[in-house]
Amino acid sequence: MTQPFRIALAGLGTVGTGVVRILQTHGELLAERAGCRLEIAAVSARSRGKNRGLDISGYDWSDDPVALARRDDIDCLVEVIGGEDGPAKAAIETALSAGMNVVTANKALLAHHGQALAERAEAHGAALRFEAAVAGGIPVVKALMEGLAGNRLTRVMGVMNGTCNYILTEMLRTGADYAQVLEAAQQLGYAEADPAFDVGGIDAAHKLALLAALAFGTRVDFAGVRVEGIDHLTLPDLQRAADMGYRVKLLGVARLDGTALEQRVQPCLVPADTAIGQLDGVTNAVVLEGDFIGQVTLEGPGAGEGPTASAILADIVDIASGLRRPVFGRPADRLIDAAAPAATPPAQYCVRLTLEDRAGCWAEVAAVLGRHGVSIDRMQQYAHDGPGAPVVIVTHPTADAVLDAALDEIAGLAVSLARPVALRIEAL
Amino acid sequence: MTQPFRIALAGLGTVGTGVVRILQTHGELLAERAGCRLEIAAVSARSRGKNRGLDISGYDWSDDPVALARRDDIDCLVEVIGGEDGPAKAAIETALSAGMNVVTANKALLAHHGQALAERAEAHGAALRFEAAVAGGIPVVKALMEGLAGNRLTRVMGVMNGTCNYILTEMLRTGADYAQVLEAAQQLGYAEADPAFDVGGIDAAHKLALLAALAFGTRVDFAGVRVEGIDHLTLPDLQRAADMGYRVKLLGVARLDGTALEQRVQPCLVPADTAIGQLDGVTNAVVLEGDFIGQVTLEGPGAGEGPTASAILADIVDIASGLRRPVFGRPADRLIDAAAPAATPPAQYCVRLTLEDRAGCWAEVAAVLGRHGVSIDRMQQYAHDGPGAPVVIVTHPTADAVLDAALDEIAGLAVSLARPVALRIEAL
Repeated sequence: MTQPFRIALAGLGTVGTGVVRILQTHGELLAERAGCRLEIAAVSARSRGKNRGLDISGYDWSDDPVALARRDDIDCLVEVIGGEDGPAKAAIETALSAGMNVVTANKALLAHHGQALAERAEAHGAALRFEAAVAGGIPVVKALMEGLAGNRLTRVMGVMNGTCNYILTEMLRTGADYAQVLEAAQQLGYAEADPAFDVGGIDAAHKLALLAALAFGTRVDFAGVRVEGIDHLTLPDLQRAADMGYRVKLLGVARLDGTALEQRVQPCLVPADTAIGQLDGVTNAVVLEGDFIGQVTLEGPGAGEGPTASAILADIVDIASGLRRPVFGRPADRLIDAAAPAATPPAQYCVRLTLEDRAGCWAEVAAVLGRHGVSIDRMQQYAHDGPGAPVVIVTHPTADAVLDAALDEIAGLAVSLARPVALRIEAL
Repeated sequence: MTQPFRIALAGLGTVGTGVVRILQTHGELLAERAGCRLEIAAVSARSRGKNRGLDISGYDWSDDPVALARRDDIDCLVEVIGGEDGPAKAAIETALSAGMNVVTANKALLAHHGQALAERAEAHGAALRFEAAVAGGIPVVKALMEGLAGNRLTRVMGVMNGTCNYILTEMLRTGADYAQVLEAAQQLGYAEADPAFDVGGIDAAHKLALLAALAFGTRVDFAGVRVEGIDHLTLPDLQRAADMGYRVKLLGVARLDGTALEQRVQPCLVPADTAIGQLDGVTNAVVLEGDFIGQVTLEGPGAGEGPTASAILADIVDIASGLRRPVFGRPADRLIDAAAPAATPPAQYCVRLTLEDRAGCWAEVAAVLGRHGVSIDRMQQYAHDGPGAPVVIVTHPTADAVLDAALDEIAGLAVSLARPVALRIEAL
């Protein structure tokens, strides 16, 4: 019988509890898949006595996650404390420096310190894996690094924040406004008391930065992600998009253009009848695009105890089976330091205008658009009972700088009763 | 510099050509991902001179694939000849017996001889991988075996034959009948001259048998798959299903119920607004269901040169990187010999009846249904100008044997002008 593979678990919140539960439930199955028995040797969390519905009495206890990383009888540290600094970082650094393998769900930590941690892991011959950090249970890191290994990746894109997707689908479904749906989401536990991290697009940006590094062999560049959240979206934005055959989604999109790495998180329109357009509630979806495969879409639960713990176990089983790869697929010292591109590629936009309701208004707006070279694909004016006439335009592909300039000018017209709202239509 | 990893390629059809093309295009990228250079050493095909748009002059040539498998300077045989017997089987058996690794796209061969080949591979310490055999480019084998390693799989399900999905979506989209769309598909190269293999469900059944073995640790049991094709479906079947909010898809479904393995390929109804329901054209989708993760859906190109070759390269890179796992995830001698279940679980059905158009007809039918305990969820009668009144029923969950008995009786009624057509509604 081979030696058991000994795990130290730092963190016993939702995800940590899930990891214990899987290991306690599927001992035999996991042993078969890993080729050796997986065993929790030690755990650490803030409160030892808290009732988690689990028996953890058989595991060594430590109040200090760094102490787990200092042990010499551990094969793998599982870090599910969270936070981009503090004890999570200290524990992982200590473990890697000692050559101890690490599995983490910590997207913030990796988005900020991924390069340094990858260098440290590789210098000490330790694995550092993070399937759970991107899109929860969906095995997208594995699909990118291994499943699509025969391709040069051309684009990675997806809905990677369940909170935002829940809010956007609920607004449209119920006709409630942003604040109401956010409050409901908070009550259901789908949104944090301080939702800024999710609705501001930061969480999705963390994940996108990791996916981009994996896809393109570039250094993790969280600072290079252009981030826009959903907190400024209104119900009419969603409804008018739906009228035009689209859904609004908070998309993360990464593309390598030569040596320039485009990374952006922003609310975009996608056709309503596509897999991404149909994605409801807290589900995540990631589209991987490669030169030989075309597109593959992976869809599933982006968060939650079971799914996230499932992803962590996949990493543990891989490490226990002896699988070793560079942290981001290419040795850390050879990851490309990509520049940000000069501009995002032109796209169609859906623009919502609120115009004075009298003859000649539309002519003034159309003249401005024409002068800037913004050409119109479709247009619709709505019946209304308020002071302004709602007009929705779908443009032909336009550079965002060009559109911005045109909309700035339109906003300054007397006939324009509210600042125009433009949402990018992302080609799928 | 490490030794190159030497590949012998048996077969230079569409897929083989794609494999050469990726290896010629992405030499550097692949070397980085595999940790060593991948090199085609020898190829074999029926015709050496055929113009494939590729330079194969640098590779050793053999007319006999078995001769490739007999060489002692090859790390991996890639078999893309096809066919469940003959040279493909001979070459793979020869390679495995010599401890040579094998990558194949041959679903028919594995569906029929998977157990024996896995035993042979494991006895000789050779890898035998087949990502390309199931759902083309979609990395579903990897997702099942590795990405979801923390789960007990509960169900595997999907649309695994692009030809059928193309025919079904085109029939509904264009209003053409089965024969017309099949002919168009043949002209487009989406269907073979002899389409029986695809439209009869055999191809999907091959893939399902492989997925079931991977998911449940059971022996490949192609003979245990209940197979029904799409060739008996009519346009009204599809249209009436659409009226009721469904799409007809050729689904493969596998479930382990205790120790009984349910495997079936059959046209089923799925809600139109789901990822599977929305799946158009030749795209494939597979839903993996596990006890901790819930559901993950993988969607992408199920066939074609680039996607299939992409899957083969993923296997090659894994083998070259040193990854080794039992062929079906669990050592071949420990795969479970599962029995077929007594019955498929009850489901809702959509039943299309053609009744005489006079008072009292429906009462006769309803009486039969009631006597058999088939309860009705929804019912719709259509306006018509022909002799029979089309009636569509959606039942509450019903065992198929019960429904069959009721429909047999209804078919025998004088008021019934055509044999009732029942399609299962698969819960997603």
